[in-house]
Amino acid sequence: MSKDVYVLGGYQTDFARNWTKEKKHFLAMMREAVLGGLERTGIEPSEIEVAHVGNFAAELYCMQGHLGAFFVEIDPAFSGIPTGRHEAACASGSIALLAASAEIEAGRYDLACVVGIEQMKTVNAAKGGDFLGTAAWYDREAKGIDFPFPKLFGKLGDEYDKRYGLKDEYLAGISTVNYANAKHNPNAQTRTWYMNKGHALCRNEHNAEVGGRIRIADCSQVTDGAAAIFVASADYAKKWAARRGVGLDDIPRIKGWGHHTARLRFVDKVAESKDDEYVLPHVRSTITDAWERAGIADVAGIDAIETHDCFTTSEYMAIDHFGITKPGESWKAVDEGWIELGGKHPINPSGGLIGAGHPVGCTGVRQVLDAHHQVKDSAGDLQVKGAKNVQTLNIGGSGTTSVSFIVGV
Amino acid sequence: MSKDVYVLGGYQTDFARNWTKEKKHFLAMMREAVLGGLERTGIEPSEIEVAHVGNFAAELYCMQGHLGAFFVEIDPAFSGIPTGRHEAACASGSIALLAASAEIEAGRYDLACVVGIEQMKTVNAAKGGDFLGTAAWYDREAKGIDFPFPKLFGKLGDEYDKRYGLKDEYLAGISTVNYANAKHNPNAQTRTWYMNKGHALCRNEHNAEVGGRIRIADCSQVTDGAAAIFVASADYAKKWAARRGVGLDDIPRIKGWGHHTARLRFVDKVAESKDDEYVLPHVRSTITDAWERAGIADVAGIDAIETHDCFTTSEYMAIDHFGITKPGESWKAVDEGWIELGGKHPINPSGGLIGAGHPVGCTGVRQVLDAHHQVKDSAGDLQVKGAKNVQTLNIGGSGTTSVSFIVGV
Repeated sequence: MSKDVYVLGGYQTDFARNWTKEKKHFLAMMREAVLGGLERTGIEPSEIEVAHVGNFAAELYCMQGHLGAFFVEIDPAFSGIPTGRHEAACASGSIALLAASAEIEAGRYDLACVVGIEQMKTVNAAKGGDFLGTAAWYDREAKGIDFPFPKLFGKLGDEYDKRYGLKDEYLAGISTVNYANAKHNPNAQTRTWYMNKGHALCRNEHNAEVGGRIRIADCSQVTDGAAAIFVASADYAKKWAARRGVGLDDIPRIKGWGHHTARLRFVDKVAESKDDEYVLPHVRSTITDAWERAGIADVAGIDAIETHDCFTTSEYMAIDHFGITKPGESWKAVDEGWIELGGKHPINPSGGLIGAGHPVGCTGVRQVLDAHHQVKDSAGDLQVKGAKNVQTLNIGGSGTTSVSFIVGV
Repeated sequence: MSKDVYVLGGYQTDFARNWTKEKKHFLAMMREAVLGGLERTGIEPSEIEVAHVGNFAAELYCMQGHLGAFFVEIDPAFSGIPTGRHEAACASGSIALLAASAEIEAGRYDLACVVGIEQMKTVNAAKGGDFLGTAAWYDREAKGIDFPFPKLFGKLGDEYDKRYGLKDEYLAGISTVNYANAKHNPNAQTRTWYMNKGHALCRNEHNAEVGGRIRIADCSQVTDGAAAIFVASADYAKKWAARRGVGLDDIPRIKGWGHHTARLRFVDKVAESKDDEYVLPHVRSTITDAWERAGIADVAGIDAIETHDCFTTSEYMAIDHFGITKPGESWKAVDEGWIELGGKHPINPSGGLIGAGHPVGCTGVRQVLDAHHQVKDSAGDLQVKGAKNVQTLNIGGSGTTSVSFIVGV
């Protein structure tokens, strides 16, 4: 039995939409993603054997649990199929994919649908910020604090500053690249926004501070969105490829993955890593585990990255943790333009969480879908030329749960 | 590579405790279950490779998500290990075990810890009842309704009454057996309660109606509780067995499992099954899939059952769905004493959800732990003599997600 897991394609909703304003339940969003994905992949509903849903906190945003079961409501053919919901804060989508891929590797099923979903615009910004605090240790790090997460990721910048020095202009550079890439992404939340380097660089009242060194332009978006992908065993993928007139070798697969969890509180993470060259060593292990499983030596084997830029500081951290620069020298990659779409290490061709948007439980699935488009050479204006291996990094909490996938052909 | 998954043992907290009154965070409960389990199994913390947490709605009860990451806080040796949280309403514990066992079957890890946990006594009964409504389709079945779940399971009784006839005395009989068994369970919530057949049979104001034909004595308990189990590959189990001086054959394993999801709303389930001999056919398939995977022909091969008696009607449904009687004749099994501890088909030696308690996300894990004790002949006063194969049935929502495991030696 081959243990390969193939990614057949999928669908992402338009992240600029506000489903509350449209007076629609999140089921409508899930339905659009799944039915859209089935249409694009030419898969029949009756072929789906199992469904895994990634969602962070519909209990809070939508007063609804049991998200897996909503999958069954999408199509009569789904009645009876096994479902489950998986959560690890902002890494929920990746946790759902890990559960789905494990079941395929184990031979339980041949074809799974993985849906990442979050409807966040049901509440105002302050309440939403409080809800996001439940991704940290709420009682100790978030309760009674306005917008706890920008503050936590501000501290990540502070830690870099302390250990290696950090100039705000490099954070602004990261923001600029993400907004610029998003301009070309037809599903990006910010694609029509006015945003340029001058604005991102502006560190005054025109770009308000929300948490220490984190300003508005450093933040990812509050987003309603869903993404569905279909993952399959070699047996199913072979048949599916044949009916599309292509070979199994043309179908992207998950070549490697990594998954680690650090301590919850940011202060405990930093205390643990004080003698380490990496600020978040468990994130580093997540990345290198994925390389090891994929048989890739280092970042030179990765053609593009979709990373978790919940704030500019998390992408700044990702740059050296991926080994694009030595630890503490991420600024070089920004300065030299390496992370831009035409650069030697393009990061977030999609625009990432800052430009494309960050529907929390959806993000990990959206990243893998974008990676799939890249290696299929079907990413349109976002295409990284000749991309064969694309790596994702999805992070829950303040660097707590991290998951990485390498999708390649 | 053997795909067998072994259950090495574990630990259940005392379900009679109220952790809010003790002023303790749920992490204390998780820690007790995991460290207690490690001690009982002689496993070192450093041996645990991955952790899966089953939890329904800590976001609502405790304003906390990202439950998987709390595992890391238990012991310094856990820093960095992969974790995730899994949810399917009251079947969350089983969904966590399915994720863990898939990873072991896939060869990703050799030793996993699965923790089921729920802290529910943080809120009053009315608010808790509302939170439980998020296991159903909240907007359509629960919003603005006091105690929606007893009402939904009251309708299950009504459906049986309509199709086959149902006398309340049989529901009272089910309640009586669960309470009686719980008397002998040192971890049961109701072990010190005064409850007898006379009380359960009482269908008047001394046993108040909470939802149609569902009265207080028909209900499971609101419970704070956690259970941890350790599941392993054959490779690890063999070494572990050797250091305990026993053979691999002495170690219980998961012989089979089933997993299905029906439509969310109870009214849609019943419409779908109107021409079926089973009221909840997807629950039936869950049970029979487990038999098929275990190579067991029918219920005659099962020595005891731990089933999901969130209400007496759900156990009434389970009796015929397990094939103990013909469809609609569950009353016979109650009347003849078959489901009692000394009967031919003992159900819930532990006392089940009615007697032992129902910490929602914990229940599926607790059932498997109790099944493990039965087949290890270590169930004390709850022991079903000579039990070799014990089957669980864990249900989320109004019969929506169902999961079953067969644990055997």
